[in-house]
Amino acid sequence: MAKPIPDIVVGRLPIYLRALSFLAAEGTQVTSSHDLGKRLGISAAQIRKDLSFFGEFGKQGTGYNVGYLREQLLRILKVDREWPIALIGVGDLGRALAHYGGFVDRGFRIVALFDNDPAKIGQTIGDLEIMSIDRLAEVAQERGIRAVMLTVPAKAAQKVAEACVAAGVKAILNYAPITLKVPDGALVQHTDPVTHLQRMTYYL
Amino acid sequence: MAKPIPDIVVGRLPIYLRALSFLAAEGTQVTSSHDLGKRLGISAAQIRKDLSFFGEFGKQGTGYNVGYLREQLLRILKVDREWPIALIGVGDLGRALAHYGGFVDRGFRIVALFDNDPAKIGQTIGDLEIMSIDRLAEVAQERGIRAVMLTVPAKAAQKVAEACVAAGVKAILNYAPITLKVPDGALVQHTDPVTHLQRMTYYL
Repeated sequence: MAKPIPDIVVGRLPIYLRALSFLAAEGTQVTSSHDLGKRLGISAAQIRKDLSFFGEFGKQGTGYNVGYLREQLLRILKVDREWPIALIGVGDLGRALAHYGGFVDRGFRIVALFDNDPAKIGQTIGDLEIMSIDRLAEVAQERGIRAVMLTVPAKAAQKVAEACVAAGVKAILNYAPITLKVPDGALVQHTDPVTHLQRMTYYL
Repeated sequence: MAKPIPDIVVGRLPIYLRALSFLAAEGTQVTSSHDLGKRLGISAAQIRKDLSFFGEFGKQGTGYNVGYLREQLLRILKVDREWPIALIGVGDLGRALAHYGGFVDRGFRIVALFDNDPAKIGQTIGDLEIMSIDRLAEVAQERGIRAVMLTVPAKAAQKVAEACVAAGVKAILNYAPITLKVPDGALVQHTDPVTHLQRMTYYL
């Protein structure tokens, strides 16, 4: 049986993928663990070790083919397809994410917007109408939504997260400044500007 | 000489700190690597190993004192003080961050807002006026700004990052969907909703 792959390794793959997409867009065809590492602030040895969990992607001395390695990472991360996602909570941050142009060519498309504010429900952003959060279960099922971005206030986040899981959502990207508890089988990633800043002040 | 501490370990400290602050706010006085690990999806062994780089914070069988460990992490991450930070780029995301309430009691205060749009310059958010980005160097020096959040469009980000570094900024939290190149001695953390989502789709 294959060894399970450490989550921390999985967490670095999207970073490698982003760098490879950047190189591909620049027209670069070949790279190396050394080049990637320099670009990302990760050691070349770490990159080689991480990738070795998933196969043999380069040859000693000739480096990696950017297009091929990128395609393999798209496949491994399952973003060689398009995931329909919902955005829950259309405040400033929700609005910013709704306008963010970086989803579509990286495996995701926002297909539903939810809020609980009657003044917002019925408004549109782009070609999406903001819907009542009461419709979450119905719409998630209808549109095959398994991942959401949660941009509701902290005090509402736990309740909304539970409603998401009950609606069949398996992955929650949580922007609310609170630690969510979800049942086993559901995933939460927390994103928070302060943790990123604190990681840097350590070095200052 | 002490071994250098792996950056990946440093990167987990803010996560531990957030959980400890949550526990402290709940009134919990004692926790364990097991409890913390369960809450965070990190193994208890990993947490003990990470913390052991910095000292002895708990006793076998009695766990960690939440308040004490929290204070130690505040000190280690240098957020037992308040860092003045600037926000550059006041679009939807910049506005959301400017309104975000989670900075002040976690080591940071936004003390300056910059944009290059004449229609925005002079407007205020809370008690801060949006200033022309041309004033970055002057204001950064005057207000002791060493860390910034960069929420400008991707095509402007590299140039603005260079202006930041030239103005003495040492830490950039980059929200633009582009990999920035900065000189040695400056730090960049990239934050991007897609990398978080991709880390979860791997498991779906």
